[in-house]
Amino acid sequence: MYKFYYFSNSCSVASHIALEHSGADYEAIRVDFANEEQRKDSYLVVNAKGRVPALDTPRGTLTENPAILMFISQTFPDAGLAPLDDAYLMAQVHSFNAYLSSTVHVAHAHGVRGIRWADDAAAIWEMKRKAPEVVGDCFELIENRLFKGPWVMGDQYSICDMYLFTIAQWLEADEVDPTRFPQVLEHRTRMLEIPVVQKVLAAQ
Amino acid sequence: MYKFYYFSNSCSVASHIALEHSGADYEAIRVDFANEEQRKDSYLVVNAKGRVPALDTPRGTLTENPAILMFISQTFPDAGLAPLDDAYLMAQVHSFNAYLSSTVHVAHAHGVRGIRWADDAAAIWEMKRKAPEVVGDCFELIENRLFKGPWVMGDQYSICDMYLFTIAQWLEADEVDPTRFPQVLEHRTRMLEIPVVQKVLAAQ
Repeated sequence: MYKFYYFSNSCSVASHIALEHSGADYEAIRVDFANEEQRKDSYLVVNAKGRVPALDTPRGTLTENPAILMFISQTFPDAGLAPLDDAYLMAQVHSFNAYLSSTVHVAHAHGVRGIRWADDAAAIWEMKRKAPEVVGDCFELIENRLFKGPWVMGDQYSICDMYLFTIAQWLEADEVDPTRFPQVLEHRTRMLEIPVVQKVLAAQ
Repeated sequence: MYKFYYFSNSCSVASHIALEHSGADYEAIRVDFANEEQRKDSYLVVNAKGRVPALDTPRGTLTENPAILMFISQTFPDAGLAPLDDAYLMAQVHSFNAYLSSTVHVAHAHGVRGIRWADDAAAIWEMKRKAPEVVGDCFELIENRLFKGPWVMGDQYSICDMYLFTIAQWLEADEVDPTRFPQVLEHRTRMLEIPVVQKVLAAQ
């Protein structure tokens, strides 16, 4: 039995979808960001970073989306969530997810959590002002260079699709017009038709 | 034959050390950041992101440190650079490297490349002012919670050590006192005694 810690519409949606696909026996536990529960001692013993997702396993707790996604894909190979037998294709999967994690999510965070990197209100406002441009540049690269189609990695649906879908759901809130990215938008629409995705969004 | 694209003292040092450990046949190609070579068409055809590291393989080019490190560890298993046979331990390795990539490196970047997230000079200065605090907080977490010792993951030397060493080399330039983190500092000193590490630093 796993315990999965998440917050609605956060990046944890990606790992939540993968867990649901895997067939794993898990309990989903909502961390209430609205009440800053992620910074309370009761959660910091789970994840000292004060972030989601976190996956409590019989051997210990895992954090960071790219690592949890990889763990799920490897622990439940029958779910077919990654090209596990091919080191080069797996590296492509991790490269894409690393870009989402370290560049695209970070670009988004400047629009909503500039306080991580500045104290001054004007500086935080300036980051927020520029965030749509930075997020938009990231999605230009995804649309034109990284996305293979029909899924992120081509013919095989994978943990990249769950993660891209999750971050693409934020585009309107990030004040980026999703119609600039037809492949990403069509992919997002198609993801919303998958029963597992619908189930996770409803549960959250 | 691989082609490895790097810039001196950038995060590419981590993948460079892993490549040298692996015994792979590779050519190291320096991308001259001082002349903005990473933004020129001749390099953008290699890596459209305009970043290093990039690893050109017979099947295509890989980018992002965590992905390249994983690829090297899996492609050259005899080098013993990661706990390849244990999905949970591998997820821990990737969790640590994902934290370095998406949080610690990003904290550092606010001190040197704030222009990624703001146009206004005062905002960029404010990020630079706060960067030592943010980087210091990251290393507090590494020192007190994530680092197992004597290596990052405990008894086994791994791709986490190469990546931590690389970013810990920046502490003084980030205006963070490394003596606050005795385990990280001792680890950094020990890494500098490894012949492969010395060879890579000399080659760069």
